[in-house]
Amino acid sequence: MSEPRVIRKPIGNFLEDFVPGQTFRHKGGKTLTEGLFSTFTEFTMTTNPLAKNARYARTYGFEGLVCPPGLVMLLAFSQTVEDVSENARANLEYIDMRFGAPVYVGDTIEVETKVLGVSASKSNPRLGVVHVQSVARKNLGARDEAVVLAWQRKVQVWKRDEAAELHTGSAEPDAVAVELWLPSFDPARDYKALAHLTNADTYFEDFTPGTRVEHSRGRTMTSEHIHLTAVLDNTSQVHCNQFMIDLDPKQYVGGELIIFGGIPFVLCLGLSCPNVGDNALGDLVYATGRHTAPLFAGDTVFAATEILAKRDHPTREDLGILETRLLGHKFVRVLEEADRSAPASAGGAGARSEPEASEAPPGWKKVQIFELERALVVKRRSHYA
Amino acid sequence: MSEPRVIRKPIGNFLEDFVPGQTFRHKGGKTLTEGLFSTFTEFTMTTNPLAKNARYARTYGFEGLVCPPGLVMLLAFSQTVEDVSENARANLEYIDMRFGAPVYVGDTIEVETKVLGVSASKSNPRLGVVHVQSVARKNLGARDEAVVLAWQRKVQVWKRDEAAELHTGSAEPDAVAVELWLPSFDPARDYKALAHLTNADTYFEDFTPGTRVEHSRGRTMTSEHIHLTAVLDNTSQVHCNQFMIDLDPKQYVGGELIIFGGIPFVLCLGLSCPNVGDNALGDLVYATGRHTAPLFAGDTVFAATEILAKRDHPTREDLGILETRLLGHKFVRVLEEADRSAPASAGGAGARSEPEASEAPPGWKKVQIFELERALVVKRRSHYA
Amino acid sequence: MSEPRVIRKPIGNFLEDFVPGQTFRHKGGKTLTEGLFSTFTEFTMTTNPLAKNARYARTYGFEGLVCPPGLVMLLAFSQTVEDVSENARANLEYIDMRFGAPVYVGDTIEVETKVLGVSASKSNPRLGVVHVQSVARKNLGARDEAVVLAWQRKVQVWKRDEAAELHTGSAEPDAVAVELWLPSFDPARDYKALAHLTNADTYFEDFTPGTRVEHSRGRTMTSEHIHLTAVLDNTSQVHCNQFMIDLDPKQYVGGELIIFGGIPFVLCLGLSCPNVGDNALGDLVYATGRHTAPLFAGDTVFAATEILAKRDHPTREDLGILETRLLGHKFVRVLEEADRSAPASAGGAGARSEPEASEAPPGWKKVQIFELERALVVKRRSHYA
Repeated sequence: MSEPRVIRKPIGNFLEDFVPGQTFRHKGGKTLTEGLFSTFTEFTMTTNPLAKNARYARTYGFEGLVCPPGLVMLLAFSQTVEDVSENARANLEYIDMRFGAPVYVGDTIEVETKVLGVSASKSNPRLGVVHVQSVARKNLGARDEAVVLAWQRKVQVWKRDEAAELHTGSAEPDAVAVELWLPSFDPARDYKALAHLTNADTYFEDFTPGTRVEHSRGRTMTSEHIHLTAVLDNTSQVHCNQFMIDLDPKQYVGGELIIFGGIPFVLCLGLSCPNVGDNALGDLVYATGRHTAPLFAGDTVFAATEILAKRDHPTREDLGILETRLLGHKFVRVLEEADRSAPASAGGAGARSEPEASEAPPGWKKVQIFELERALVVKRRSHYA
Repeated sequence: MSEPRVIRKPIGNFLEDFVPGQTFRHKGGKTLTEGLFSTFTEFTMTTNPLAKNARYARTYGFEGLVCPPGLVMLLAFSQTVEDVSENARANLEYIDMRFGAPVYVGDTIEVETKVLGVSASKSNPRLGVVHVQSVARKNLGARDEAVVLAWQRKVQVWKRDEAAELHTGSAEPDAVAVELWLPSFDPARDYKALAHLTNADTYFEDFTPGTRVEHSRGRTMTSEHIHLTAVLDNTSQVHCNQFMIDLDPKQYVGGELIIFGGIPFVLCLGLSCPNVGDNALGDLVYATGRHTAPLFAGDTVFAATEILAKRDHPTREDLGILETRLLGHKFVRVLEEADRSAPASAGGAGARSEPEASEAPPGWKKVQIFELERALVVKRRSHYA
Repeated sequence: MSEPRVIRKPIGNFLEDFVPGQTFRHKGGKTLTEGLFSTFTEFTMTTNPLAKNARYARTYGFEGLVCPPGLVMLLAFSQTVEDVSENARANLEYIDMRFGAPVYVGDTIEVETKVLGVSASKSNPRLGVVHVQSVARKNLGARDEAVVLAWQRKVQVWKRDEAAELHTGSAEPDAVAVELWLPSFDPARDYKALAHLTNADTYFEDFTPGTRVEHSRGRTMTSEHIHLTAVLDNTSQVHCNQFMIDLDPKQYVGGELIIFGGIPFVLCLGLSCPNVGDNALGDLVYATGRHTAPLFAGDTVFAATEILAKRDHPTREDLGILETRLLGHKFVRVLEEADRSAPASAGGAGARSEPEASEAPPGWKKVQIFELERALVVKRRSHYA
């Protein structure tokens, strides 16, 4: 046989490929198995019994163990990576991420994305920003088809060809009906008999706007992140292809694999759980969120939550809505930090100043890695304990 | 918004918080998924088909794959960590650990602990010993609610405040009815048709008291231990927070993360399985057990079993009871060992002298890491093969 | 008690133990859980929705998520390791690996192996080759008992005693009825409504014999391989016992743990999936395959597929058969490669010349690690999209 003709199939879209108004019906789809559920629920140290204790979840009116919001996000988001961000430099912002139907083991999730905007970078002719709206539904075609998550995001994407014309412009987002499903309150159920399974000080009545809770646990991430990212179908090569980075280490922050942002996202949710999420029935909306510095294998992640506001639930007197800001951070040795994190951040322009720098021990610097505006629906002690 | 008031919520109890006679109903609870089952059954190299082959397990009269005793222990023990040992220096001793009902995928386990004793350390005013009794039940409120494990343990716990008064004293353990569930022997079942699925030389008749079996396989542990510990809900920071250790490396053995003792515990059970546990129907009781040296990522774990005694089962002529001592060890380079393991051991006073030191190859030292008095219920060849 | 008598139980067979014509009914057996399914399906970046999307799989006529061919191979192969290759130096060749019934979560697989040949090495008196035929069946004793995989392999095995006599000779392979199960084509089903879930350019019509597809993604393997290998019940110590290697590093390639060949095998299948396997209904046969160089933690795996030939399916006009050669490779720094990979390769005599050496970037050498003759059954666009 003669020398074969070689074909290199590009994967994913580049900046010039996106057209405002176009829609992607993403490939694959994902059925939630008990394997994936276990890996992601439990590695985050989530403490809400809805995701751990089927007896508790069923008593509250769910069908079984409930997929925690962080894993719903990971499942849905990862389906969009090949089409939207396989060739991205950074995920700039999560916007208006709204939760709908609960997700259980066995549910199949499929996702669609609409392009809302394309714009060129002013400073770098090889980059630009794509703004998209995505909707994840479960069990399409089945009786209980339902939206589980809808969100927008802005992502910084590379051009394939620096000289290519862009389809700049914008499109209106679709109106997506998404409402957090909540089990009804049934006075006949003995909720109080389960009250010892959650923390006693995380009911709606316990939170005070204007306070900030420093969550006490930290978690060191290892090279496990490569496996975690792969099992989510997130195929972005900056998370798993060390050879690509070795060929051009200066192009990549720190010359090493960057941990997929979804990992610190769900890890911060988990670390905050014993103090904030333990008595929540669901996460309502993440109005905005961003990664403000990259995370690498070996870093230890910590989290804090600012309690911003409290309000009544519009239709449920047994519940309240808690508005919070979830913050993630790590500490880097002052010398090390100068070496690798300074020139580029995964979140680019989104980085905030750091009011807590003085909290770091001598020789270390506190680096904020993540922030998320998060509204939760929380049980009232008056009804449940 | 003005600078928020910062709240740091302590997690877990310190020595001065424990009161003899008090009872903890632990938070969370845990439903056994196929994900967790797979991770822990299979990483230990367990060879007993009850945990691997549903056809075998059902033929023997179980409902399906049987959760191996090591994983029952991990599930139950981990539920007690936050309340009992989140602030511990070392787990000193496992006592009278008795198995009851079989655990299957889908079962939910919840645990209670009673404080049996509190005492101060004579040598270190910041430390003391807490003695507890714990009981794990499955499917509470359901028809087949049952005790799956009952045990005592002694744990060395830090004081929050060195000057605090202790609630020294003791309380009686509760009488807990726990009996190992065993499927009945049914002559109509064709056990012999399955005999090739287990080792031919691990029936009750094959063991000789006074012998010691060196299990031939070893298993190198990696930083995977951080993930394994997290998915068990074991939140103790010495296993997963490298930053905490970097801040004060001299306080921690070797200046690195210590592997959760439950990992070598189940790994030694697994490594012994082809020679000792392959034809067991269950583990009856662990009379006493302890960790005698810490384990770190990179260490390779080996195991041996001493056959101590054999006795008839009181009610079952098809089964016998085997009394053994399970031992775990690793080898350290002589130089390395002098550096980091010498001054402090995770098991403190429990370390034994090491009669097998001469077995180590030149340049290496054999270090015992674990010992467990273990009684198993083993099939007789006369009935099953 | 007096010093116990010490027993060291050897595990697995050595070259002199094999007798042509003898049959092993392997111990253990394995029930496929959702945990194992998730770990192995998803770490390989498989994109075929049969293994990811239960809605898609059911619409096509399968019972649920379909175990991908790579995992069927790993499950079946691993059951044979203790008896056949626990004491092997290298797996030389996979031969005539044929797939049969689909494997679903909950199925139990058991395996038998017949020894077809034993021969001595001409150059090394401590080594020889064992040739075996293995058959994996599912749900033995149940109504739907079926062959899921049949294959031969040749493996280079150590002698226990260099002076031992060998049972050289050969035996005829058994005739094994194994036919790839395929769901029937039903015009009433709306396949087209699912067409967006797979790549649009991987139907049978899209392939051109004589082309070579370079798959664009790479995947860095980490020490995770130890865990992955253990959960498969593959007990070979060269994959998991670093202490054994530290005692005699020159005996082992590179002085470090070698990654189990099944890992690059399934990883290459996964990396090729978006370009080759996305619209396949099954893998038919792997006529021959081999590992041509070892893989270590830290290496990044890439894959390519040569399209060798296309032919009609004998009974199905909706499908075609695609004959391919799947190739795996990695890049090593020129200096590093000289140090450790040059003198010995895991595949020994099987290494081919490397026509693509010139493709490596300066300072790097491309090393082929794996090749597999692979025939797939692929959907025709005319019927499915």
